[in-house]
Amino acid sequence: MKQNIYDNDIFYQAYLDLRLNSTGLNDVLEIPAFRSLLPENLTGMRILDLGCGFGQACSRYASQGAAKVIGVDISKKMISRAKQIYRHENIEYVCLPIEDIGFPREEFDLVLSSLAFHYIADLKNVLERILYCLKNNGFLIFSQEHPVATAKQIPDGWCKNENGEKMHWILDDYNDEGIRKQNWLIKDVIKYHRTMSTIMNTLIGCGFKIVKVLEPTPIKEAEIINKDLKNERRRPPFLMIKAQKGQSSTHSCRRERV
Amino acid sequence: MKQNIYDNDIFYQAYLDLRLNSTGLNDVLEIPAFRSLLPENLTGMRILDLGCGFGQACSRYASQGAAKVIGVDISKKMISRAKQIYRHENIEYVCLPIEDIGFPREEFDLVLSSLAFHYIADLKNVLERILYCLKNNGFLIFSQEHPVATAKQIPDGWCKNENGEKMHWILDDYNDEGIRKQNWLIKDVIKYHRTMSTIMNTLIGCGFKIVKVLEPTPIKEAEIINKDLKNERRRPPFLMIKAQKGQSSTHSCRRERV
Repeated sequence: MKQNIYDNDIFYQAYLDLRLNSTGLNDVLEIPAFRSLLPENLTGMRILDLGCGFGQACSRYASQGAAKVIGVDISKKMISRAKQIYRHENIEYVCLPIEDIGFPREEFDLVLSSLAFHYIADLKNVLERILYCLKNNGFLIFSQEHPVATAKQIPDGWCKNENGEKMHWILDDYNDEGIRKQNWLIKDVIKYHRTMSTIMNTLIGCGFKIVKVLEPTPIKEAEIINKDLKNERRRPPFLMIKAQKGQSSTHSCRRERV
Repeated sequence: MKQNIYDNDIFYQAYLDLRLNSTGLNDVLEIPAFRSLLPENLTGMRILDLGCGFGQACSRYASQGAAKVIGVDISKKMISRAKQIYRHENIEYVCLPIEDIGFPREEFDLVLSSLAFHYIADLKNVLERILYCLKNNGFLIFSQEHPVATAKQIPDGWCKNENGEKMHWILDDYNDEGIRKQNWLIKDVIKYHRTMSTIMNTLIGCGFKIVKVLEPTPIKEAEIINKDLKNERRRPPFLMIKAQKGQSSTHSCRRERV
């Protein structure tokens, strides 16, 4: 199922407000950690950004010297905004579900995806398509909601006392993988819960080598300003993985261009 | 800190009662999952079992054709019992803390460890010693308590309602790694909490390749007999990793025999 919540008017506006007007978890936690996994020098690289949203990251990669950046997003609204705001001669934006990508063989040095994989029903399908268009020894770097954050389908994962204080994180249903409906900006956003081991083994099974795993916590400067961020240390909100395509990976996961 | 709870008389007797007289989680969950990671044919293999306890697994490996099995345990009582009950011409039992192993270079095809690593303070030290005595392309297979099970230091990890029913698993303090004191058979057993990412990155940093990750659930036959085992699906009790020594690993982690 290819979900396009970002073209829902209410969701889209709420999402823009969140990303543009606040210093949310993305800015103090997800983005710094994600950047720490990128190669130091992007000069001349060919990069694919899956779930590029309104193109902020694509623009950064292009300004850092990437030879080509392709941003893919299912949302017409997002792609339209990206084309307006983050134009660059080396960036191409494509409105397409991640599940349908079909780029030429060994086209990219890097495939990146920030907080999109928990919306994907068939991870193996997407990983095979990524492998196909990734160069040998190229890297896939992605972040997603952490399995302990997606496991239990509830409006709020924190168990709170009568004063609203966060007592502990509620973990349940961990090994029952599948759809989770969550209220996030709008009602019934569909996410897919997969365990840590399923994510790892799917990567390895496709032919990726796990290079680094992060369960990032907020940067210290932000924790000093916003004490509430300390709660993000109490359970991991995000999972990030850097994986490398091995030279033997192409055989098992070769795939015709779609 | 090398903890030797197994030579505590009360602990030792309680542990034997648990392992010999019940069908606990080990039998229906940890042991079957662990065996699924072993090579199908152990014939002629040289195997090191770290935290071998009273030698049950060593005996199995020997009876399956292993050329040499060395069982290491810190507990004199356990080693003494192993030597009595699970004697075999191909098994050698050594009473030694895991942290102090110093076997010859590239001595073993397999290094195995069942539910012992959460007692180890310095994982990197142990992994380097394992790498040294493991052959190139040899495997380390280990299980330990899952990070979501060791994270919060409390007598019982389940949040229960007034009727004693398990409502959900309590997760907290995940990113604060270090000592956890738990009451298990005796008071104040010391375990070391490490995050999933720390465990993975320590393995990778030493030169291991992650081959498979398991967060096992009970075997179905056992779940039918004991309905309460379904709770073990609600949060992962154990983490198991199969990792391979790459040919380039020896350089960074070479270590003199201790």
